[in-house]
Amino acid sequence: MTTEQFATRHIGPGPDDERRMLETVGYSSIDELMDAAIPEVIRWHGTLDLPEPATEAEALAELRALAARNTVAVSMIGLGYHGTHTPAVIRRNVLEDPAWYTAYTPYQPEISQGRLEALLNFQTMVTDLTGLATANASMLDEGTAAAEAMTLARRASKSKSPVYVVDADALPQTIAVISSRAEPLGIEVRVLDLDVEELPGEFFGLHLQYPGASGAVRDHAALVAAAHGAGALVTVAADLLALTLLRPPGEIGADIAAGTTQRFGVPMGFGGPHAGYLAVRSGLERMLPGRLVGVSRDADGNPAYRLALQTREQHIRREKATSNICTAQVLLAVMAGMYAVYHGPDGLRRIARRTHAMAARLAAALRGGGVEVVHDAFFDTVLARVPGGAEAVVAAAAERGVNLRLADADHVGVSCDETTTDAHLAVVCAAFGVPAPGAGAEEALPAGLARTSEFLTHPVFTSHHSETAMLRYLRRLADFDYALDRGMIPLGSCTMKLNATTEMEPISWAEFAHVHPFAPAEQTAGYREMIAQLEGWLAEVTGYDAVSVQPNAGSQGELAGLLAIRAYHRDRGEGHRDVCLIPSSAHGTNAASAVMAGMRVVVVACDADGNVDLVDLDAKIDKHRDALAAIMVTYPSTHGVYETGIAQLCAKVHDAGGQVYVDGANLNALVGFAKPGKFGADVSHLNLHKTFCIPHGGGGPGVGPVAVRAHLAPYLPGDPLGGRAAGRPAISAARYGSAGILPIPWAYLRMMGASGLTRATGVAVLAANYVAARLRNHYPVLYAGNKGLVAHECILDLRPLTKATGVSVDDVAKRLIDYGFHAPTMSFPVAGTLMVEPTESEDLAELDRFCDAMIAIRAEIDKVGSGEWPAGDNPLANAPHTAAMVSGDEWPHPYPRSVGAYPAGVDRAGKYWPPVRRIDGAYGDRNLVCSCPSPEAFES
Amino acid sequence: MTTEQFATRHIGPGPDDERRMLETVGYSSIDELMDAAIPEVIRWHGTLDLPEPATEAEALAELRALAARNTVAVSMIGLGYHGTHTPAVIRRNVLEDPAWYTAYTPYQPEISQGRLEALLNFQTMVTDLTGLATANASMLDEGTAAAEAMTLARRASKSKSPVYVVDADALPQTIAVISSRAEPLGIEVRVLDLDVEELPGEFFGLHLQYPGASGAVRDHAALVAAAHGAGALVTVAADLLALTLLRPPGEIGADIAAGTTQRFGVPMGFGGPHAGYLAVRSGLERMLPGRLVGVSRDADGNPAYRLALQTREQHIRREKATSNICTAQVLLAVMAGMYAVYHGPDGLRRIARRTHAMAARLAAALRGGGVEVVHDAFFDTVLARVPGGAEAVVAAAAERGVNLRLADADHVGVSCDETTTDAHLAVVCAAFGVPAPGAGAEEALPAGLARTSEFLTHPVFTSHHSETAMLRYLRRLADFDYALDRGMIPLGSCTMKLNATTEMEPISWAEFAHVHPFAPAEQTAGYREMIAQLEGWLAEVTGYDAVSVQPNAGSQGELAGLLAIRAYHRDRGEGHRDVCLIPSSAHGTNAASAVMAGMRVVVVACDADGNVDLVDLDAKIDKHRDALAAIMVTYPSTHGVYETGIAQLCAKVHDAGGQVYVDGANLNALVGFAKPGKFGADVSHLNLHKTFCIPHGGGGPGVGPVAVRAHLAPYLPGDPLGGRAAGRPAISAARYGSAGILPIPWAYLRMMGASGLTRATGVAVLAANYVAARLRNHYPVLYAGNKGLVAHECILDLRPLTKATGVSVDDVAKRLIDYGFHAPTMSFPVAGTLMVEPTESEDLAELDRFCDAMIAIRAEIDKVGSGEWPAGDNPLANAPHTAAMVSGDEWPHPYPRSVGAYPAGVDRAGKYWPPVRRIDGAYGDRNLVCSCPSPEAFES
Repeated sequence: MTTEQFATRHIGPGPDDERRMLETVGYSSIDELMDAAIPEVIRWHGTLDLPEPATEAEALAELRALAARNTVAVSMIGLGYHGTHTPAVIRRNVLEDPAWYTAYTPYQPEISQGRLEALLNFQTMVTDLTGLATANASMLDEGTAAAEAMTLARRASKSKSPVYVVDADALPQTIAVISSRAEPLGIEVRVLDLDVEELPGEFFGLHLQYPGASGAVRDHAALVAAAHGAGALVTVAADLLALTLLRPPGEIGADIAAGTTQRFGVPMGFGGPHAGYLAVRSGLERMLPGRLVGVSRDADGNPAYRLALQTREQHIRREKATSNICTAQVLLAVMAGMYAVYHGPDGLRRIARRTHAMAARLAAALRGGGVEVVHDAFFDTVLARVPGGAEAVVAAAAERGVNLRLADADHVGVSCDETTTDAHLAVVCAAFGVPAPGAGAEEALPAGLARTSEFLTHPVFTSHHSETAMLRYLRRLADFDYALDRGMIPLGSCTMKLNATTEMEPISWAEFAHVHPFAPAEQTAGYREMIAQLEGWLAEVTGYDAVSVQPNAGSQGELAGLLAIRAYHRDRGEGHRDVCLIPSSAHGTNAASAVMAGMRVVVVACDADGNVDLVDLDAKIDKHRDALAAIMVTYPSTHGVYETGIAQLCAKVHDAGGQVYVDGANLNALVGFAKPGKFGADVSHLNLHKTFCIPHGGGGPGVGPVAVRAHLAPYLPGDPLGGRAAGRPAISAARYGSAGILPIPWAYLRMMGASGLTRATGVAVLAANYVAARLRNHYPVLYAGNKGLVAHECILDLRPLTKATGVSVDDVAKRLIDYGFHAPTMSFPVAGTLMVEPTESEDLAELDRFCDAMIAIRAEIDKVGSGEWPAGDNPLANAPHTAAMVSGDEWPHPYPRSVGAYPAGVDRAGKYWPPVRRIDGAYGDRNLVCSCPSPEAFES
Repeated sequence: MTTEQFATRHIGPGPDDERRMLETVGYSSIDELMDAAIPEVIRWHGTLDLPEPATEAEALAELRALAARNTVAVSMIGLGYHGTHTPAVIRRNVLEDPAWYTAYTPYQPEISQGRLEALLNFQTMVTDLTGLATANASMLDEGTAAAEAMTLARRASKSKSPVYVVDADALPQTIAVISSRAEPLGIEVRVLDLDVEELPGEFFGLHLQYPGASGAVRDHAALVAAAHGAGALVTVAADLLALTLLRPPGEIGADIAAGTTQRFGVPMGFGGPHAGYLAVRSGLERMLPGRLVGVSRDADGNPAYRLALQTREQHIRREKATSNICTAQVLLAVMAGMYAVYHGPDGLRRIARRTHAMAARLAAALRGGGVEVVHDAFFDTVLARVPGGAEAVVAAAAERGVNLRLADADHVGVSCDETTTDAHLAVVCAAFGVPAPGAGAEEALPAGLARTSEFLTHPVFTSHHSETAMLRYLRRLADFDYALDRGMIPLGSCTMKLNATTEMEPISWAEFAHVHPFAPAEQTAGYREMIAQLEGWLAEVTGYDAVSVQPNAGSQGELAGLLAIRAYHRDRGEGHRDVCLIPSSAHGTNAASAVMAGMRVVVVACDADGNVDLVDLDAKIDKHRDALAAIMVTYPSTHGVYETGIAQLCAKVHDAGGQVYVDGANLNALVGFAKPGKFGADVSHLNLHKTFCIPHGGGGPGVGPVAVRAHLAPYLPGDPLGGRAAGRPAISAARYGSAGILPIPWAYLRMMGASGLTRATGVAVLAANYVAARLRNHYPVLYAGNKGLVAHECILDLRPLTKATGVSVDDVAKRLIDYGFHAPTMSFPVAGTLMVEPTESEDLAELDRFCDAMIAIRAEIDKVGSGEWPAGDNPLANAPHTAAMVSGDEWPHPYPRSVGAYPAGVDRAGKYWPPVRRIDGAYGDRNLVCSCPSPEAFES
């Protein structure tokens, strides 16, 4: 017996709302609507085989029981994952604050200044610490950052050699990810022990670890010079904490630095999420993949932040893109950046010195007890040689609650970190059978590598060191931004729905937060059980046979899926199949992923209704029949329509020997009503941060599991520590990717159950059709399927209005800010349109508020069209209006202040004010500044 | 070895700040400053005997270990404390959100509209459910609410009888609190079993429990009529959840309803905190004690909320006050009100029906198994008769993790609640040795008592039922308010310092949150150990011998301390001593507490410097020598000065046979430097919500432990379940008062240690003297002690400026809002002044921002004085300026909009805008409306 169904809290419209919405759309029930909307050919009529929905309390109790089966040991395993103290003020006011975690990617910069500033702090932190010129706003983890560094080197190097040299002392999981990424691109990875092996004569890039996985701190200057001599670029994968004490990559000539910021206050989470980083020397900044925050100016000429160089992104470059990274790790990058803000340069140095002192004392104790310490120079990690005895030492420490690294039968690695205590060292020494360390020990950092340059000199890193000051800084930034906690974010294809608190709370629990990804299996039974359940439920929901949660973003899921197809063809002796068909309406990431999977992209046309043109499809299949590897389609289509030709499409591709990839971005329109794995697809990735309630975090974390039919299951991602030998690619650095946030979709599925999920889909489709019905007379709705119905989103065509009045999609998007909304998706998939996805979580009051605003804006557009307001100076052109603008002493505009400030229906007392006026993105791209501007820049 | 001292995060100024502040004040070190400021006669030169400061991580680990020693059992004990599901969205976004918990009491209503609306929801919920006309904004718990109801009845009744009749089926702890409060007031409490005993002929009031502690639901109508016939008032202590199904007190003629709202989503917390409630019929509203939120209007005529009828408060009425309640339980009242908003009337009814069904099924199962169920009519509690077997049943259930109530040797009480499951019922039945319940059972609610009236009909209770809508409502309200997360709240005597996240986090842990106050001792070892440590540390800090944390507000601590003095005199055969000397500068609560303790207040004058006039003291002592019971003084004085005469004062009172009560409100100026228990005082109460970091929560919870020297220790509060027999009063309903938040001061003391606490005091005094030094030339600083130094706060005298310009303290306070500040304490202790307490947590940047604002305001006042701005229409008179005002289409004011909106130094982008203009409090008092106004009221 349960008290109340979570579904009633997750789904916005109640029974009364639903009735009124159905009335407007013209159906008597959701079932009737769905019967009409969804083509019978794909319709699935069963009931999802999931556990009965649990209440919130029951779900938490079950998760508690799973969590209790994990052991929270002291982790001294290292290898890029370290214990860290998350400052409580950051945990509570970033990680656990909906103002931060429910925010969307900052594509609307005027209402994202808070997290853009936080990301600029992150970038500044990375560039300062690495000594390089430009860093992006985070990567998915160290492994994928290193892989991106490799392809960046490939693009930038003049060398024609396919050889990429990797330091044998690189992190093993990094080597696995690099190798997985290299193979389809024709890059030859050569792992060399550079202490003894020579560099080859020709190579395009060199990857060095600093300090090495073994803990060794080496002077890489000579290798860097040699690589440059060969025309190769050098990536240094560096530990940022070590860089507070060690000469940074930029000062030894590195071209690129890559790594993780996990130990800057982000819990290990059994492997993720945390923010990877990537930084480049001057001259390479326009080749940086991912998102880059830069400084520009607003309509008043004041400094303002926004994503820079957006035109590099794959949604523009498509098949010419060389990276498919899309979602970043914004929430975690914000945390890491704030960790640096809170500690400042002195604090970080103190933490580093203390960590090093712990390691040095341990080394001294080991040597004193007769244990050989392999390296004289190290930062935080001591590699001990215990011939034949490593396993026993590791077991002895584990018994006392401390995990060490079993490097091989003869070597044990011990990594110290911020959380290491004397008690931990005593356990380690006891495991080695030596006396506990003394009070001090000599430094083991080579004098020649000591850092002499300053870092984090910007005032932001020295102004918020009391908790009070930090709290206020976080609040101030959060207040700049518009997130789901303020109102609707109707982003087509991005499914901004409720991220329920009950889903979020468990990720803070120690049993989920503080587990090392390489912890012994017996310590992670709860995690593995939870993940197995989740993978099973996702398979049931999608109709596939196997799921891997490893890909830590949708883009990575795409890559994993395409690599599975590639491997399948190869193993069937059809390795020549390399053509990937992609409809012209596809998201750019699709094309980029295909290229990364070693495929050639062939575009298939769409017809006037936005559907895949089956005639053109036939033609393309004919032309590439023998080479056909796959087709990638999104379903419902990126136009938000249930295409009726999908079954035919699948059959045609299968007949030609190709595989069908269905992009799961729009799965929110299918759950409970159709299963891609049953209606013809072979593989999909899912976006757990869309359909399954992981919050967008302001631009990440995302999780993009890959789901496949049985024949592709052998090719799902493998354990990065298992190496390539296992035949499965390493898509992320950790076996389960961003495992730390998987309790979120687990809880969502557990609490919704079959009935809740199915109803959610129905209400999402109802809501989209309600919006379409209410707005159709004011803006043409661009595409529709059966009976004029849309799926879970609708496209509003502004092109005729723009043509007639000059009012652009941008103007409408910015004007929506004045009305208290985040803009819908702009100009995707069709330029000059807005794509609206209301989701099931918005209640009728909010849907109506949005429709009313759009209708009011239409009336405003008409006033521009009629000449009542001049084209260049009207509430649309001047939007968004800041408080400073509407309260200015001068008001030179031809409409009243109140029209600018408080358009119809706006809640005066509770109005959200953007902190800046419209931002000139192009100015910032011409004058690229990607680190914190000086405070003087803000003086007006 | 620790990583970093928490003190560096708690204390705002760093070493550089400190140096610059000392320079301004004219001292070379904090030690030198403190030597000069604190009279040597009270100075204590030792080092506090506290554990070495723990880091945040260490303190949390220790608390985890203590928490692990509590057992989280299923509680079916009842007696006013019930299991409840706190909606996660409310837990995270109210209880765990600094925007709510760091807010101050809403004395500045323009910047408190959010919590005032939330409290109005609470009041509306209480009046609707009880069927009475007016409810206040919360009481401390059910016991004290019932005691306040008794004294309210005393004031309102025309009967001259001293007899107060209490239903024997009232909660035992309520009877204990009522009895403790009655005795010093000369009220004779008569506990009668009204099922069999007759009402006396004369009595002034009657207290009934509904349903009874035994679970019985009785029709009280006849008793109410009989009481009214005798001229008595009737209080019904009612369970609000039951009232969704039962005829409410107001409909059976009750004059007063009292009780708790704990089960509306507030965890039990081993006894508190949670919000008690008090509601009265029409005609009694102006006699209601505590805080009352009402609707008034702002300068634009828009509805606006503020505390109503403030002139009733003890700070005005002083010794004529009949209640000393001051701090309420705002944070918890907000939670309970939001619980009602989230569930709405239907949801609450569903919860009540389900709870009742559980109890009914249990009763049927017991009867079916041959166990006698005592009452036929019950709501959630079943009383079973098991002659001689009660202990065994209770033990058997406890062994299986369920706590039952051992009513007596023959009776077991079982209370169901929102969290009860079939599994729990099965355990209970097994303990009784009967088969588990069947699926259904007949209702046991008397048909004649069924509720027929509607409740919670205001739209707010039906508009926020999805989590998304609820989240946004909470964010919207939080955004209306100014709390410590935005900036400084420089309230004299209220010590608004950092409430660190690490201090706050543990109160959400299940092991602290979900413990019933009457749980078996073996289940609460961790709690009791933590409390014993805390009491010991507080004793060490204050120099006293014994401490009780039972008083759940400072006012209750005062009462407890004075009752101890009273009992001490009585036991020494000097029960005639009943005069309490109180300086004219004292806080009104002091006088009210003295009256409640059965004392007569005699006022002692202060001299021109604000010190107690020792000549007048001699005179008053002479006059009342034989009757002298005590003196109550605040130290440092309410004027913020270290009086040098304190030792003399203590000696004089002691010589005359009196006891010395030192109000601990200003302890933040003493910790580590002076101990009241050592410089002459016999008893103090402490404000854990001031000096020891419990957040103010927008007006509560507070905790006011009482600390005494050894001779008073036998008179400290006792266990309310132990009854009066033990000779100790019951000050709160639970043995340890608001135990659930004691981890906060525990963590503060544990992390600060002797060094941190002492440094905090020094920096607090430095900060106050810094503010005084910077502002002295702009506003006279009213009082000072040694060498012209103030203690931890300073009083700025505005009277000459007001006289010269007409600009009032109110104008300055409201203008500070425009500058982004909460006003200092207004007109206390001296009318026409502002009292500023910066605390140690504000860094120099914030102190300077405040001083700069005050200096800029002084320049603005001069412009009014010079006639540049007219007296009635200037930025001060019109403050605060809302965004709507400064962006209005018309601007009729003689100063530019920018001056109104963005005075010098204000952060334009991040400006806080109040949601309403200045509020007319008197209008609302004349037109008293204390429940939610209709939405139409807000239409402009």
